[in-house]
Amino acid sequence: MTFSATDHRAMARALQLAARGLETTTPNPRVGCVLMRDGELVGEGWHRRAGEAHAEIEALRVAGDAARGATAYVTLEPCAHHGRTPPCAEALIRAGIARVVAAMEDPNPLVAGRGLAMLREAGIAASSGLMAGEARELNIGFIARMTRGRPWLRLKAASTLDGKTALNNGVSQWITGEAARRDGHRWRARACAVLTGIGTVRGDDPQLNVRAVPCERQPQRVLVDARLDVPLSARLLQGGKCLVAAAVADEGKIAALAERGVEVVVLPDTAGKVDLPALMLELGRRGFNEVHAEAGFKLNGSLLREGCVDEILLYMAPMLVGDTAQGLFNLPELAALDKAVRLDLRDVRRIGGDLRVIARPLAI
Amino acid sequence: MTFSATDHRAMARALQLAARGLETTTPNPRVGCVLMRDGELVGEGWHRRAGEAHAEIEALRVAGDAARGATAYVTLEPCAHHGRTPPCAEALIRAGIARVVAAMEDPNPLVAGRGLAMLREAGIAASSGLMAGEARELNIGFIARMTRGRPWLRLKAASTLDGKTALNNGVSQWITGEAARRDGHRWRARACAVLTGIGTVRGDDPQLNVRAVPCERQPQRVLVDARLDVPLSARLLQGGKCLVAAAVADEGKIAALAERGVEVVVLPDTAGKVDLPALMLELGRRGFNEVHAEAGFKLNGSLLREGCVDEILLYMAPMLVGDTAQGLFNLPELAALDKAVRLDLRDVRRIGGDLRVIARPLAI
Repeated sequence: MTFSATDHRAMARALQLAARGLETTTPNPRVGCVLMRDGELVGEGWHRRAGEAHAEIEALRVAGDAARGATAYVTLEPCAHHGRTPPCAEALIRAGIARVVAAMEDPNPLVAGRGLAMLREAGIAASSGLMAGEARELNIGFIARMTRGRPWLRLKAASTLDGKTALNNGVSQWITGEAARRDGHRWRARACAVLTGIGTVRGDDPQLNVRAVPCERQPQRVLVDARLDVPLSARLLQGGKCLVAAAVADEGKIAALAERGVEVVVLPDTAGKVDLPALMLELGRRGFNEVHAEAGFKLNGSLLREGCVDEILLYMAPMLVGDTAQGLFNLPELAALDKAVRLDLRDVRRIGGDLRVIARPLAI
Repeated sequence: MTFSATDHRAMARALQLAARGLETTTPNPRVGCVLMRDGELVGEGWHRRAGEAHAEIEALRVAGDAARGATAYVTLEPCAHHGRTPPCAEALIRAGIARVVAAMEDPNPLVAGRGLAMLREAGIAASSGLMAGEARELNIGFIARMTRGRPWLRLKAASTLDGKTALNNGVSQWITGEAARRDGHRWRARACAVLTGIGTVRGDDPQLNVRAVPCERQPQRVLVDARLDVPLSARLLQGGKCLVAAAVADEGKIAALAERGVEVVVLPDTAGKVDLPALMLELGRRGFNEVHAEAGFKLNGSLLREGCVDEILLYMAPMLVGDTAQGLFNLPELAALDKAVRLDLRDVRRIGGDLRVIARPLAI
């Protein structure tokens, strides 16, 4: 399949529209749609939030009669099933669309290709694969959940240039600057949940909500707390949903938390700690696409060791504090470099006075 | 003073020519010269090595009679004194140059401005300050030595993204890739000396010469070895000059080293270690402009702590090894972040698969 320059321009616009839903569509994917007829844009739309109109329906509404004979560019294959809204493929057929270009097929292996098939059966030229890489990045969490049942886990950390997240006495505020903090909150805002550990709650008592940037929908909070040590006064538990993952079924503590609207899931592993891969599956079942972790070096190390980390978002301050300070990842001692966690450097840039590195662990 | 676009172009060319001497002019500065008459380049030259012609003389030789009435662009103020060669200011006057533009004055406070004054006395329009920042960067080591008596110390290190230079068992080869190694050798090649510590000699027995890139002049080696523990078989001591800085005057060891052509300077501090600031002054006295340090986390920490580090050249591999591995800098434990060594990030880029950061400690 080859696509024209017009096709590319239209899909680029559709991706731009889709990104408007970055922080609000959860648990749905971010989707944009552009309708072009005779080289003219006749309608566009994007999905705002679950339960509201899909991108295609929005674009058809804008185009009205002009949709007849148009090409529809959609960042994700139109749905063929009745969910909370009727199938978009049907709506496109009814509106007399002549051609549909999807950036990618539905990542859910159970329904992938069905929407395009329904369109083709109705005589519509339907194809996919235009700017698929960009489309996948936009919904990386949704795709992760659909294809493997687990959310996309993005681990955020802030360190000095010599890899230290805090002084030995625990002081960590503020290693990085205001711009990095704002940028970090932007990443929180797009996540379905922010995850941390009991060590961070004890040390910093963070709120872990989005404050530094505007935010329509606060992410839920998830706390890894094996022995349910969290004090009921912890700021994390106030305002907004919080899920606590524990390894012990302490009924009294669970009831006390429930009274404050905090749910507890008990997921012990054989070592008596929280079974992190099981927690990831649980978060997947709850419809979380992207999970944003901000924890200390112990939970960071455990998440990394247990294969739960998909992406590392590391802010490095131009500062050196020396080797007595606290490091980034608690990992078992290695005997050889070939056992190191190798990363794919995805993006490196300056954010204010700091350096930001986005990297993804490579499959071993 | 304002300069024209032609002035800028000519000086940019002069700087480019000067940079050809990057690895060979030591202990002299890197200098380039361009002669322009009626908008035409009539001559250019650069200083190749000490004892050979200065840039101005080279350019005048190329221009011949065409130099009469020309403007000379020089990256450094023409000299006014008789050194190993006669003064360039005199040569410019004799050749009938009409105007001289220098990027910067001579950094030696004892002679700064004398060359320009000599030219002005001869009726030549002489000015300085065009692209001064670039010119200073080009001779940052020479300027450091002239203004403060110490070389410019550039500390090179290679670490993982979590700030580790070696595994706990000492394994460090190879954290970074081939491109970073070549780039590191390029920085070695421009230095007058490569400095390391006895810990690195014990652990890796490095040659510390330039091998991965072509090299006309090997830098000398400087070894910090307080108790003169270096084995006579160390590769660092073979082929090429090596200076050992010790804290003990062990006559037998000094004689054995001297027999192999290795000089020892004894510079103890009050703690019985090598007095690093005194060593820097000693290296300055010996005409070293840029010193390239490649050491372990102990000497790295000492150099940083004692204010000897001017620049950090850090290669970071996209790899995580965890907190049991060896760190970058051995520094005393800090109680507050305002005691951290703050850095000015000068350059961040990818070198092959690795990340390279150039940063300079800010004065406290």
